[in-house]
Amino acid sequence: MTGKKKAAKASLEAMYRVFTVPEAPESTLSRIDKDISSNLAGFLQDHIVAIERDLSDVEKDFAESAIPEKPIFVSEQTQFLLDKLVANSVHTAAPSFIGHMTSALPYFMLPLSKIMIALNQNLVKTETSKAFTPMERQVLGQIHRLVYQQDSAFYRKWMHDPRHSLGAMCSGGTVANLTALWVARNRAFPAEGSFRGLHEEGLFRALKYYGHEGAAIVVSKRGHYSLRKAADVLGLGRDALVSVETDESNRIQTDALRDKCLELQKQKIKIIAICGVAGTTETGNVDPLEAMADIAREFGAHFHVDAAWGGPTLFSRTYKHLLRGIEEADSVTFDAHKQLYVPMGAGLVVFKEPGLASAVEHHAQYIIRKGSRDLGSTTLEGSRPGMSMLIHSGLKILAREGYEILIDQGIEKARTFARMIDDQADFELITRPELNILTYRYCPEGVRQALAVADELQAEKMNACLNRITKFIQKTQRERGKAFVSRTRLEPAWYYHFPCIVFRVVLANPLTTPEILEDILKEQRELSKDEGIADEIDILQQMAAVVLKQSQKAARQA
Amino acid sequence: MTGKKKAAKASLEAMYRVFTVPEAPESTLSRIDKDISSNLAGFLQDHIVAIERDLSDVEKDFAESAIPEKPIFVSEQTQFLLDKLVANSVHTAAPSFIGHMTSALPYFMLPLSKIMIALNQNLVKTETSKAFTPMERQVLGQIHRLVYQQDSAFYRKWMHDPRHSLGAMCSGGTVANLTALWVARNRAFPAEGSFRGLHEEGLFRALKYYGHEGAAIVVSKRGHYSLRKAADVLGLGRDALVSVETDESNRIQTDALRDKCLELQKQKIKIIAICGVAGTTETGNVDPLEAMADIAREFGAHFHVDAAWGGPTLFSRTYKHLLRGIEEADSVTFDAHKQLYVPMGAGLVVFKEPGLASAVEHHAQYIIRKGSRDLGSTTLEGSRPGMSMLIHSGLKILAREGYEILIDQGIEKARTFARMIDDQADFELITRPELNILTYRYCPEGVRQALAVADELQAEKMNACLNRITKFIQKTQRERGKAFVSRTRLEPAWYYHFPCIVFRVVLANPLTTPEILEDILKEQRELSKDEGIADEIDILQQMAAVVLKQSQKAARQA
Repeated sequence: MTGKKKAAKASLEAMYRVFTVPEAPESTLSRIDKDISSNLAGFLQDHIVAIERDLSDVEKDFAESAIPEKPIFVSEQTQFLLDKLVANSVHTAAPSFIGHMTSALPYFMLPLSKIMIALNQNLVKTETSKAFTPMERQVLGQIHRLVYQQDSAFYRKWMHDPRHSLGAMCSGGTVANLTALWVARNRAFPAEGSFRGLHEEGLFRALKYYGHEGAAIVVSKRGHYSLRKAADVLGLGRDALVSVETDESNRIQTDALRDKCLELQKQKIKIIAICGVAGTTETGNVDPLEAMADIAREFGAHFHVDAAWGGPTLFSRTYKHLLRGIEEADSVTFDAHKQLYVPMGAGLVVFKEPGLASAVEHHAQYIIRKGSRDLGSTTLEGSRPGMSMLIHSGLKILAREGYEILIDQGIEKARTFARMIDDQADFELITRPELNILTYRYCPEGVRQALAVADELQAEKMNACLNRITKFIQKTQRERGKAFVSRTRLEPAWYYHFPCIVFRVVLANPLTTPEILEDILKEQRELSKDEGIADEIDILQQMAAVVLKQSQKAARQA
Repeated sequence: MTGKKKAAKASLEAMYRVFTVPEAPESTLSRIDKDISSNLAGFLQDHIVAIERDLSDVEKDFAESAIPEKPIFVSEQTQFLLDKLVANSVHTAAPSFIGHMTSALPYFMLPLSKIMIALNQNLVKTETSKAFTPMERQVLGQIHRLVYQQDSAFYRKWMHDPRHSLGAMCSGGTVANLTALWVARNRAFPAEGSFRGLHEEGLFRALKYYGHEGAAIVVSKRGHYSLRKAADVLGLGRDALVSVETDESNRIQTDALRDKCLELQKQKIKIIAICGVAGTTETGNVDPLEAMADIAREFGAHFHVDAAWGGPTLFSRTYKHLLRGIEEADSVTFDAHKQLYVPMGAGLVVFKEPGLASAVEHHAQYIIRKGSRDLGSTTLEGSRPGMSMLIHSGLKILAREGYEILIDQGIEKARTFARMIDDQADFELITRPELNILTYRYCPEGVRQALAVADELQAEKMNACLNRITKFIQKTQRERGKAFVSRTRLEPAWYYHFPCIVFRVVLANPLTTPEILEDILKEQRELSKDEGIADEIDILQQMAAVVLKQSQKAARQA
């Protein structure tokens, strides 16, 4: 054997080992593997270093653009990941991380995920998934039943019917919403006469054939941004996402919705879908779904409900009434990586009628042939992992009762926090929680009094100042790394609809305690006294004083 | 405390434990966790029972449509999963599973996945991903560099630029292709004069404004089915996916491509994109990318290359020339869960020009604000897991050299298998491997001789018969569970383009040996003698005898 051949053989054998020989038990990676299994919370706390480190600084560790030529040891990369990636990641499971919809995971999800990854099934076809396919169909059936409450006979008939699908698993809520609207769009322009349907001939010919000037998706202005993205992807254009005003509780105004639909109809614009929101991303409110269903029926529009966040409220006997009317939706989006407590990367959409998904059905020669059980025929994605196994496990291990507790305690904790904020003179609750989301801001007592009597211009000035303060507090608190609330912009009616920056809080982690919430307020109050924002606070207090003085003077004169 | 309150407190505490107390070391799930870590191959072999069990039978274990009311123990669900799900899943990592693009994983991917899942980052925004964002940008930059070979200065400038993105991570190749074509479609109809761009106003107005009668995506007839799906999703309609004939090597005919483009132009149909395929799904062939780039330029079309399968061929110094011209593509799809050997659920698209992704940019109030580093502003998906961490690790641990070995040995093994098939009188190679994919079928010696002299009608009859035999052998072999090849339909020119069913083989698992390939042929030959197909074989032999006799007679007469 020549030297060159020998070297080639050695490399090949090394590669063989990479695929067949597991990490030694005493290797860095095996140790971490064990650490995570035995004490996840400890591992995260020990390794995630919540220090104030700017992203531009972190970028330096990820600056090399060339793919390395020579292999390195697994242990070396593991150490790199621990020091540079894990250390600078976000402790999303921390009970004081209440800013976004990513929360802690039940412990069993981790080893179960390992099984899923080890099996490496591909759900696009049964040839690479076998039992995973009926398992996923069952999960879709179970969520369908949670939403639509059909009887067992219905599911016996449809759940495993190879020519039908009660829904589609997706990588997340965005793809779920897109899938629902894809179905809605294609169904709005079906084959008829010489026209072979939008799915074949496209939107341009569809509108021409049916004599429409355009097509629209109608949703409240609190609808998730994925809907606008979907309008773009689907070729309708972002303009086609028509926003409707909300009431003081961030729910769609049904009168305004109906007016808008009439207006669109008059303009010969086809209403493809009306979307209800069951748990707005920013404020956690639920649209009046029953009334919306009626309006959708009146205008012959597909009724979609985006319950990515609020869907699991259906587990709660106490609160499921909040979603009344959801069972009238043609399609419903559910996110599993939110309140089903499954790791990131799992969403789904269910369809009321088993035939609906056929509007987007497609086949190929080598897989998902007609009549096969392959789930790939009605999903937007192709190759997909077996995430549904984790939903399946959550539904069995936690069961309805377990999820009910999670939902109930989240909503009740949000109410507790709202009361806490109400009780503090220097914080202002902006939206009261309907589900487990609320918004508020820091607002010194005198300023609140001044805002109550201010005219529009004065209020605008003070709110602009408060915006800078809120932004500062939120950013600084995040950078400090002990706690995290997010921020968004809302337009409260009582401030003349001026866009106000607010703290946004999502209470889905069962480990978040009232004490933690107290501490968060305490830190925010502290930050309001920070040098970096002292000038803003001064100006604000002065403005408030002037406004109050004027108002008192006016009162005396009156 | 009342009994009811006590019960509620107990449930809440139980839920607490689910989130805080890991599985005990001696629990079923912990044991499995350990088993998988120490001996994955053994675990899979021990637990995946490749028995002939019909899916309709498997469905019985997943028949309950109601979500269970009461929680069960983790161990109970684990046992259920082992017995019912894992036992009946597909051993995609088996060296004899050479039917699809899902292969074995390097061992380190498993514990690394656990870190990824434990961290549960969400890549849509830096607030829930921090260091994962620069890490993902680096991965996109590295693949970009692999494809486009820009210099270090280019990447220093663009890789971490918050207002730009060199690509988009996706859940798989389908979303990657869709994202590329979404960009292409929006760029084909940009804002101009009074028109605010397709992304805002939609396809209908875009075509009207620009005076087009339609829009098309052009690809060879061997293009992946996701492209047709994308044409539907994007509102172009499936008709808009225009297929071009291929040559005898399943590569697009460039003359036919140019003619088709001229024809579309004459019909006032805007050519949005021309797609090259670098590794056709069915036969693993690569289109003449350089020539296609020229044609795309000539017609002002976006040039996209679907390198979901073949992209990593660029790691090989020996074979990368096969993809010559890929660097001229405006966008390229790469699948990480294929030949980057990452677990299911990871694909990506890279864009030649850093500004391209802006055609699909979007923002929201509470995240992905303008100017933020959030990666969510140019991805089709919203919330996404940190899969790029696994790509990052593969690129460092295996490095270019490691991937080169994987690519080279796959291609060489395919050539070995092709020679093996050539050497057997009763097997017929249908497509010779260019990369690591080939197709063939069982075809008794006499039949092959007869086919060589048969007229069109005779050939059709014999091929129809062979189709039933191939299908039978493929299905039975799959059901037996020892080995798996897939099947598809091709139209060989030498059989008058009659659709022939063929075995399809993908050689990406480094553990597949020549002996295993020998055994697969042996089992197929055995199956050809199976009772279930005896009648077909008989008929076929008789047909062949008649054809041969006629032909000999004709030869004598001549």
